[in-house]
Amino acid sequence: MAPVTNYRAHTGAREDKHYKTTLFEGNHLMVGVNCLEPGQEQSVHTHDSADKVYIVMEGEGLFTIGEETHVAGEGSVVWAPAGVPHGVRNDGEERLTLLVGIAPPPGKH
Amino acid sequence: MAPVTNYRAHTGAREDKHYKTTLFEGNHLMVGVNCLEPGQEQSVHTHDSADKVYIVMEGEGLFTIGEETHVAGEGSVVWAPAGVPHGVRNDGEERLTLLVGIAPPPGKH
Repeated sequence: MAPVTNYRAHTGAREDKHYKTTLFEGNHLMVGVNCLEPGQEQSVHTHDSADKVYIVMEGEGLFTIGEETHVAGEGSVVWAPAGVPHGVRNDGEERLTLLVGIAPPPGKH
Repeated sequence: MAPVTNYRAHTGAREDKHYKTTLFEGNHLMVGVNCLEPGQEQSVHTHDSADKVYIVMEGEGLFTIGEETHVAGEGSVVWAPAGVPHGVRNDGEERLTLLVGIAPPPGKH
Protein backbone atom coordinates (compact mmCIF):
# COMPACT_ATOMS: atom_id res chain seq x y z
CA MET A 1 0.00 0.00 0.00
CA ALA A 2 1.13 3.57 -0.63
CA PRO A 3 2.48 5.18 2.53
CA VAL A 4 -0.47 7.59 2.75
CA THR A 5 -4.13 6.67 2.97
CA ASN A 6 -7.28 8.14 4.51
CA TYR A 7 -8.95 6.10 7.22
CA ARG A 8 -12.35 6.84 5.65
CA ALA A 9 -11.43 4.61 2.72
CA HIS A 10 -11.10 1.67 5.12
CA THR A 11 -14.28 1.75 7.20
CA GLY A 12 -16.90 -0.97 7.05
CA ALA A 13 -19.44 -3.03 8.95
CA ARG A 14 -20.04 -6.65 9.80
CA GLU A 15 -23.22 -8.06 11.25
CA ASP A 16 -21.66 -10.80 13.36
CA LYS A 17 -18.91 -8.80 15.04
CA HIS A 18 -17.06 -5.53 14.80
CA TYR A 19 -15.18 -4.68 11.63
CA LYS A 20 -11.37 -4.70 11.64
CA THR A 21 -8.81 -4.01 8.96
CA THR A 22 -5.08 -3.40 8.93
CA LEU A 23 -3.69 -0.28 7.26
CA PHE A 24 0.02 -0.75 7.89
CA GLU A 25 2.21 -3.27 9.64
CA GLY A 26 5.95 -3.21 10.28
CA ASN A 27 8.21 -5.13 12.61
CA HIS A 28 7.39 -2.78 15.48
CA LEU A 29 3.93 -1.29 14.92
CA MET A 30 0.57 -2.23 13.42
CA VAL A 31 -2.01 0.45 12.54
CA GLY A 32 -5.59 -0.46 11.75
CA VAL A 33 -9.20 0.67 11.62
CA ASN A 34 -11.91 -0.78 13.87
CA CYS A 35 -15.60 0.05 13.34
CA LEU A 36 -18.27 -0.83 15.88
CA GLU A 37 -21.91 -0.47 14.96
CA PRO A 38 -24.34 0.54 17.72
CA GLY A 39 -24.50 -2.31 20.24
CA GLN A 40 -21.27 -3.99 19.11
CA GLU A 41 -18.33 -4.47 21.41
CA GLN A 42 -14.74 -5.58 21.55
CA SER A 43 -14.52 -7.81 24.62
CA VAL A 44 -12.08 -6.90 27.34
CA HIS A 45 -8.73 -8.55 26.65
CA THR A 46 -5.08 -8.08 27.52
CA HIS A 47 -1.90 -7.89 25.47
CA ASP A 48 0.78 -8.99 27.89
CA SER A 49 3.66 -7.65 25.84
CA ALA A 50 2.19 -4.94 23.61
CA ASP A 51 1.12 -1.33 24.14
CA LYS A 52 -2.11 -0.26 22.43
CA VAL A 53 -3.65 3.08 21.57
CA TYR A 54 -7.14 3.84 20.29
CA ILE A 55 -7.96 7.13 18.56
CA VAL A 56 -11.65 7.96 18.27
CA MET A 57 -12.21 9.35 14.77
CA GLU A 58 -16.04 9.24 14.74
CA GLY A 59 -18.75 8.37 17.25
CA GLU A 60 -18.41 7.63 20.93
CA GLY A 61 -17.22 4.57 22.82
CA LEU A 62 -17.46 3.21 26.34
CA PHE A 63 -13.91 2.07 27.03
CA THR A 64 -12.76 -0.24 29.77
CA ILE A 65 -9.15 0.29 30.82
CA GLY A 66 -8.13 -1.81 33.78
CA GLU A 67 -10.68 -1.17 36.52
CA GLU A 68 -11.94 2.06 34.95
CA THR A 69 -14.56 2.88 32.35
CA HIS A 70 -14.47 6.05 30.26
CA VAL A 71 -16.84 7.47 27.68
CA ALA A 72 -14.70 8.91 24.88
CA GLY A 73 -15.76 10.80 21.76
CA GLU A 74 -14.16 12.19 18.64
CA GLY A 75 -10.57 13.31 19.16
CA SER A 76 -10.01 11.13 22.19
CA VAL A 77 -6.82 9.15 22.59
CA VAL A 78 -7.18 6.04 24.78
CA TRP A 79 -4.13 4.27 26.18
CA ALA A 80 -3.87 0.60 27.15
CA PRO A 81 -0.29 -0.25 28.06
CA ALA A 82 1.01 -3.81 28.04
CA GLY A 83 -0.64 -5.96 30.68
CA VAL A 84 -3.71 -3.76 31.22
CA PRO A 85 -7.09 -5.29 30.29
CA HIS A 86 -9.01 -3.16 27.79
CA GLY A 87 -12.10 -3.23 25.59
CA VAL A 88 -14.75 -0.97 24.09
CA ARG A 89 -18.50 -0.99 23.53
CA ASN A 90 -20.58 1.22 21.29
CA ASP A 91 -23.55 2.33 23.36
CA GLY A 92 -24.26 5.21 20.99
CA GLU A 93 -26.56 5.57 18.01
CA GLU A 94 -23.94 6.05 15.30
CA ARG A 95 -20.96 4.00 14.13
CA LEU A 96 -17.85 4.20 16.30
CA THR A 97 -14.75 4.46 14.11
CA LEU A 98 -11.37 3.95 15.74
CA LEU A 99 -7.79 4.01 14.58
CA VAL A 100 -5.76 1.56 16.62
CA GLY A 101 -2.04 1.13 17.02
CA ILE A 102 -0.51 -2.00 18.55
CA ALA A 103 3.22 -2.27 19.27
CA PRO A 104 4.63 -4.73 18.59
CA PRO A 105 2.02 -6.08 16.14
CA PRO A 106 -0.09 -9.12 17.03
CA GLY A 107 1.89 -12.20 16.06
CA LYS A 108 5.13 -10.35 16.73
CA HIS A 109 4.90 -10.30 20.51
CA MET B 1 -2.03 10.81 33.06
CA ALA B 2 -5.50 9.28 32.93
CA PRO B 3 -5.74 6.69 30.17
CA VAL B 4 -8.09 8.88 28.12
CA THR B 5 -7.41 12.39 26.87
CA ASN B 6 -8.43 14.53 23.90
CA TYR B 7 -5.65 15.61 21.56
CA ARG B 8 -7.15 19.12 21.44
CA ALA B 9 -6.10 19.65 25.07
CA HIS B 10 -2.46 19.16 24.02
CA THR B 11 -1.98 21.42 21.01
CA GLY B 12 0.32 24.43 21.04
CA ALA B 13 2.74 26.59 19.10
CA ARG B 14 6.37 27.57 19.28
CA GLU B 15 7.99 30.33 17.30
CA ASP B 16 11.41 28.75 16.90
CA LYS B 17 10.38 25.28 15.82
CA HIS B 18 7.36 23.00 15.67
CA TYR B 19 5.55 22.10 18.87
CA LYS B 20 5.83 18.56 20.26
CA THR B 21 4.39 16.92 23.32
CA THR B 22 4.06 13.36 24.54
CA LEU B 23 0.65 11.98 25.52
CA PHE B 24 1.57 8.43 26.48
CA GLU B 25 4.71 6.33 26.56
CA GLY B 26 5.15 2.67 27.37
CA ASN B 27 7.94 0.21 26.78
CA HIS B 28 6.77 -0.43 23.22
CA LEU B 29 4.94 2.67 21.95
CA MET B 30 5.01 6.45 22.32
CA VAL B 31 2.03 8.60 21.29
CA GLY B 32 2.35 12.35 20.94
CA VAL B 33 0.99 15.51 19.36
CA ASN B 34 2.98 17.58 16.86
CA CYS B 35 1.77 21.01 15.71
CA LEU B 36 3.33 22.84 12.78
CA GLU B 37 2.41 26.44 12.14
CA PRO B 38 2.31 27.60 8.50
CA GLY B 39 5.88 27.52 7.16
CA GLN B 40 7.23 25.21 9.86
CA GLU B 41 8.74 21.84 9.10
CA GLN B 42 10.07 18.70 10.65
CA SER B 43 13.28 17.94 8.75
CA VAL B 44 13.60 14.63 6.99
CA HIS B 45 15.11 12.08 9.36
CA THR B 46 15.24 8.32 9.80
CA HIS B 47 14.54 5.99 12.69
CA ASP B 48 16.65 2.93 11.91
CA SER B 49 14.84 0.67 14.37
CA ALA B 50 11.41 2.22 14.90
CA ASP B 51 8.18 2.34 12.88
CA LYS B 52 6.33 5.66 12.84
CA VAL B 53 2.81 6.71 11.96
CA TYR B 54 1.39 10.21 11.55
CA ILE B 55 -2.36 10.87 11.71
CA VAL B 56 -3.49 14.22 10.32
CA MET B 57 -6.10 15.59 12.74
CA GLU B 58 -6.27 19.18 11.38
CA GLY B 59 -4.73 21.05 8.48
CA GLU B 60 -2.67 19.70 5.61
CA GLY B 61 0.95 18.60 5.37
CA LEU B 62 3.49 17.94 2.66
CA PHE B 63 5.04 14.66 3.72
CA THR B 64 8.28 13.18 2.49
CA ILE B 65 8.42 9.40 2.75
CA GLY B 66 11.54 7.91 1.21
CA GLU B 67 11.76 9.27 -2.35
CA GLU B 68 8.11 10.30 -2.47
CA THR B 69 6.20 13.40 -1.41
CA HIS B 70 2.50 13.36 -0.56
CA VAL B 71 0.07 16.11 0.35
CA ALA B 72 -2.14 14.75 3.12
CA GLY B 73 -5.11 16.36 4.85
CA GLU B 74 -7.44 15.60 7.71
CA GLY B 75 -8.04 11.89 8.24
CA SER B 76 -4.86 10.82 6.49
CA VAL B 77 -2.66 8.13 7.96
CA VAL B 78 1.00 8.37 6.91
CA TRP B 79 3.37 5.44 7.39
CA ALA B 80 7.16 5.62 7.79
CA PRO B 81 8.52 2.17 8.60
CA ALA B 82 11.91 1.67 10.22
CA GLY B 83 14.76 2.79 7.99
CA VAL B 84 12.70 5.01 5.68
CA PRO B 85 13.53 8.75 5.74
CA HIS B 86 10.51 10.92 6.54
CA GLY B 87 9.55 14.49 7.34
CA VAL B 88 6.73 16.98 6.95
CA ARG B 89 6.28 20.63 6.06
CA ASN B 90 3.25 22.85 6.56
CA ASP B 91 2.78 24.72 3.30
CA GLY B 92 -0.81 25.58 4.19
CA GLU B 93 -2.38 28.59 5.82
CA GLU B 94 -3.64 26.94 9.00
CA ARG B 95 -2.00 24.96 11.77
CA LEU B 96 -1.15 21.34 10.97
CA THR B 97 -1.98 19.12 13.94
CA LEU B 98 -0.68 15.56 13.93
CA LEU B 99 -0.92 12.60 16.22
CA VAL B 100 2.26 10.56 16.00
CA GLY B 101 3.05 7.05 17.14
CA ILE B 102 6.63 5.77 17.37
CA ALA B 103 7.41 2.13 18.21
CA PRO B 104 9.52 1.52 20.11
CA PRO B 105 9.69 5.00 21.72
CA PRO B 106 12.70 7.27 21.11
CA GLY B 107 15.34 6.37 23.66
CA LYS B 108 14.11 2.78 23.70
CA HIS B 109 15.44 1.75 20.29
